[in-house]
Amino acid sequence: MKVLGIDPGSRFCGFGVVEDAGGTRVRHVAHGILEVGEAGAIEDRLCALHAGLSREILLHRPQMVAIEDIFHARNARSALVLGQARGVAMLAVAQAGVQLRSFAPSVIKQAVTGTGRAEKDQVGRMVAVVLGIAVPERADASDALAAAICGVLRARDPHAAGPRPRGDWRTRLARRFAR
Amino acid sequence: MKVLGIDPGSRFCGFGVVEDAGGTRVRHVAHGILEVGEAGAIEDRLCALHAGLSREILLHRPQMVAIEDIFHARNARSALVLGQARGVAMLAVAQAGVQLRSFAPSVIKQAVTGTGRAEKDQVGRMVAVVLGIAVPERADASDALAAAICGVLRARDPHAAGPRPRGDWRTRLARRFAR
Repeated sequence: MKVLGIDPGSRFCGFGVVEDAGGTRVRHVAHGILEVGEAGAIEDRLCALHAGLSREILLHRPQMVAIEDIFHARNARSALVLGQARGVAMLAVAQAGVQLRSFAPSVIKQAVTGTGRAEKDQVGRMVAVVLGIAVPERADASDALAAAICGVLRARDPHAAGPRPRGDWRTRLARRFAR
Repeated sequence: MKVLGIDPGSRFCGFGVVEDAGGTRVRHVAHGILEVGEAGAIEDRLCALHAGLSREILLHRPQMVAIEDIFHARNARSALVLGQARGVAMLAVAQAGVQLRSFAPSVIKQAVTGTGRAEKDQVGRMVAVVLGIAVPERADASDALAAAICGVLRARDPHAAGPRPRGDWRTRLARRFAR
């Protein structure tokens, strides 16, 4: 099971690819940032986002694309701009015929850190620990990897991302990083 | 000059095609609604929207696509959903290599009715009068036609959609319908 996580924004789109390595392991395949550009017309940037994501999907051929659901935004204007990028990303996934799954932010945090209320940098550090890589430079990429990890765990076991018992290795690790 | 106006939503996308007929006239070419569907996954509906709009662009070959700018939404959630449809629509336009222009709602109302603060049904009635057609059944279609008319007037004369002197035929008509 290979999962591509994405974190689409109007200027950058984070992506991360992981695969199920059996047992409790999730293997890192790739991650990065698609630079959509800051200048230029918004529709041209949406074109760049669509082309870039379509290329990553073709390259990695994931069985699932995982995306974080959004419920809040600073204001209606930023929600609209975010929605534009998100819509184009979802389109690229659907056009490639790949299953798309959307997870609530708390579900992703829970899957990666063991708590649904983890801080952003804690997610980045836990992603690095789980995958055995250096902490990604940009939060867009670690958020995408976190969504992908959540996708793998959810595909493996629908309850895997739910509350875990005290003493679970991820809960312990999360607690250690929270200190 | 042929302009396609669009009013993309998550369930319906209104479209309207008009062309410059010289003088003060704008000729109606076509209008309608793309049904994106209410059921099914959002990404599949975005696919339907993208395919439908791409088809209309290919069919009518406009020189410009006009879209209403959005500043307000009921809440962040509805802005996000609206943004997703809008992003996919903008992508279809850019991929077709057609110029996209976005107009503030008040600019479109001003262009069609003579006042930037016209009511929604007043816009529909004025669109019908200007184009010599029956009032479109759905507001999505008349809003799309209004954007297209604004696009033609703006392309013809950048100041055409600005404040008009008292006694201008559109101002007079708008006043008559406002009674």
